[in-house]
Amino acid sequence: MVLRICSSDNFKRRRVLPYHSQTMDQHLYQYVDEDRLRADIMQTAEFGSVPVEEGNCRTVLTGTEANKQAREYFVEKLEERELEVSVDAVGNITGRWVPDNVNPATRSVATGSHLDSVIDGGMFDGVLGVYAGLEAIRAMQDAELSPSLPLEVVAFTEEEGGRFSDGVLGSSVAIGDCSVADALTTTDNAGVTLGEALEEIGFKGEQRLDATEWNSWFELHVEQGTRLEEASASAGIVTHITGTVRCHIDILGEANHAGTTSMESRIDALTAASELALEIESVTNEIVKTHSETAVGTVGQFDVEPGSINVIPGSVHLGVDIRDVECESMERIVSSVRQCLDRLEDERDVETTFSRPYDIEPISMSKRCIEALHSAATRAEISTIELHSGAGHDTMHIAKATDTGLIFAPSEGGYSHSAAEWTDWGDCATSTRLLAGALYDLATE
Amino acid sequence: MVLRICSSDNFKRRRVLPYHSQTMDQHLYQYVDEDRLRADIMQTAEFGSVPVEEGNCRTVLTGTEANKQAREYFVEKLEERELEVSVDAVGNITGRWVPDNVNPATRSVATGSHLDSVIDGGMFDGVLGVYAGLEAIRAMQDAELSPSLPLEVVAFTEEEGGRFSDGVLGSSVAIGDCSVADALTTTDNAGVTLGEALEEIGFKGEQRLDATEWNSWFELHVEQGTRLEEASASAGIVTHITGTVRCHIDILGEANHAGTTSMESRIDALTAASELALEIESVTNEIVKTHSETAVGTVGQFDVEPGSINVIPGSVHLGVDIRDVECESMERIVSSVRQCLDRLEDERDVETTFSRPYDIEPISMSKRCIEALHSAATRAEISTIELHSGAGHDTMHIAKATDTGLIFAPSEGGYSHSAAEWTDWGDCATSTRLLAGALYDLATE
Repeated sequence: MVLRICSSDNFKRRRVLPYHSQTMDQHLYQYVDEDRLRADIMQTAEFGSVPVEEGNCRTVLTGTEANKQAREYFVEKLEERELEVSVDAVGNITGRWVPDNVNPATRSVATGSHLDSVIDGGMFDGVLGVYAGLEAIRAMQDAELSPSLPLEVVAFTEEEGGRFSDGVLGSSVAIGDCSVADALTTTDNAGVTLGEALEEIGFKGEQRLDATEWNSWFELHVEQGTRLEEASASAGIVTHITGTVRCHIDILGEANHAGTTSMESRIDALTAASELALEIESVTNEIVKTHSETAVGTVGQFDVEPGSINVIPGSVHLGVDIRDVECESMERIVSSVRQCLDRLEDERDVETTFSRPYDIEPISMSKRCIEALHSAATRAEISTIELHSGAGHDTMHIAKATDTGLIFAPSEGGYSHSAAEWTDWGDCATSTRLLAGALYDLATE
Repeated sequence: MVLRICSSDNFKRRRVLPYHSQTMDQHLYQYVDEDRLRADIMQTAEFGSVPVEEGNCRTVLTGTEANKQAREYFVEKLEERELEVSVDAVGNITGRWVPDNVNPATRSVATGSHLDSVIDGGMFDGVLGVYAGLEAIRAMQDAELSPSLPLEVVAFTEEEGGRFSDGVLGSSVAIGDCSVADALTTTDNAGVTLGEALEEIGFKGEQRLDATEWNSWFELHVEQGTRLEEASASAGIVTHITGTVRCHIDILGEANHAGTTSMESRIDALTAASELALEIESVTNEIVKTHSETAVGTVGQFDVEPGSINVIPGSVHLGVDIRDVECESMERIVSSVRQCLDRLEDERDVETTFSRPYDIEPISMSKRCIEALHSAATRAEISTIELHSGAGHDTMHIAKATDTGLIFAPSEGGYSHSAAEWTDWGDCATSTRLLAGALYDLATE
């Protein structure tokens, strides 16, 4: 593949520094172009943009016009650098760069993230990882480096689960956990299938992207927390991704008149559910103190029926999300939930149901990927800390198929999935340099 | 006013017993016709009927087709007995009977209730009181009794607050607490005014029904509780109606990612709100034990935002309903709520807001009405207990305008505002006899 001369101003402005005067890495790092990266992220933020008073907000659900625009812009950018573009059967987009003299059949070092967002999401979540991946390849090209393996940059379909599925759908297909057929027949609330939605925007391709064929994978993502900010670190090297257990619970009491039903004769589903919410908080805090400081337990969903001020609640549906880097602490929280439900049945006469439909084990990032990141950080003089990820990301799936590394960029104030999501442009570029260094390392055998 | 000969079978079947052989009351009680009352309630249950597997369910919101049908049937039944029908400016319907030789300018003894229902409500709530009132007048007519005051039976508009207002709207206008103009411009969720809705169904009349012109008022209503059932009493004589205080509370935390936000750094609005719900329950239970056994405190409304399983709740809106027959205990509960909110702000870093937009003092029923009911119960050999009402009913308003009495009929299992609402037909008739006896007493000076 021959590099096309890019006509963009940014590209022209950059001058190639004398190669011999620097290490290869320093040479590469200088070619990571903050302005070019920023322009791509800013442009992508326009697609599905939601007007807000402060910050930047976008809604980019899979298969919508906004998603089509974001995808088309990405393809245009891939083609600008003559990357080989492919779209798979579930809409995962790949741009592949096979450097000169590299056998195209060789396994690639891959990177990327996603272009979809939650409703009213932020502008960096997913998008930074996609364009950092492309920027890393552009920097290698501009620096006239010649890795010995192909490089790929990927935008996975439906990471957020904002329209179809529970999320991370594209990567789930790429590792064979979910079949193409199952993915394509997943429907949104209106009954539209993913297949139909992808056809509609012209991004239903052929075949299946297969992550097991990759040499390795890196993802750069915003932290969505404040640990980097608190440590004044420019980037985070993730060692583990927490597992996630989700429980769905119904607590059934007796809806009745708030005025005519004595305190003694009522079966109030809300006060029973309140006890459970506090129990989950309390047992998780205890585990954090004594056993595993990374454990979290959250009741995010709490639907009260009928929900009228003058009616004693007859039922509450709770959705509980439990995460940690080890299984034992998660199991302890689940077991406390079940004990609490038994107690509530005894003490409050409520009926309860419990299900656990979502169960993902914690995983570790690969040693060689973590080492490549540390090494790149040292060479580029980037201050990093090691940390765990409480969110899954596509990397959670890819780790089952190949060696993986995950980089975090600082999130100002930790805000994410909102207009307040922000990562300093300098931090975007720095973490992209870290990504570029590690990618180049693993692609140079 | 001359009685029209009624052609209904029920009416023909009844034979007038020799007057001299009985007391006036016994004579009257025999003319209360269970079948006729039942037929009216059954027919009214057809309007707005909702299909259910068990029980009887109806949705009769003010100004709907179902409400029109229920009103038209009532008017037809009033006219059958040549009662003088009037519809006031907010749709309150009155049927007035001026017995022979009574000056029409004399103050009436009034009775009634309402024909509207909550969504998916029961068939007795309100309807029993309306048709028991009419049946009491029919019985007096059939028994050829001649009270010395006119009698009125009223169906108030929008008692339930199912479409417009917070409820008891028609009676609120009848005592001058709410102006006709304010009532008519009240809108439903779609922006339709009460005035427009009443015009639509042909029940926007003239002038204003004025409850201060009544000699006295009685309402018969289903208990919506189990105290009569527990006491095996056929009817309840209400001594007090509880006051109601409603508080609206917002608890504001920080919505954040359930996976990436450590337990220590989160501000969870849901667990804070759960503490408040349990505090309200606990302090009310304490007051019931030590101070006032009639106190109730309920969190019926509990809206969690954003309500996603993977997001820490950022805010909870609570609607709290507090009732008792005395103010002191209600104030103690409110004061505990405020102390709890202060503590939550200190301990959990949440922000809170508190408002108290709805404040109705407890009221007592009139001594002469209670005495008339006891006397009628003794004469008719009806087993009664005295009790308080935890629900407001239109009588709560009318008590500010004239002497009032409130009768409860037993509710099987205490169910109300649901398809399971049920009052035995025999109990319907017995409590109607009690109503008829008291009405006749007060109308015979």
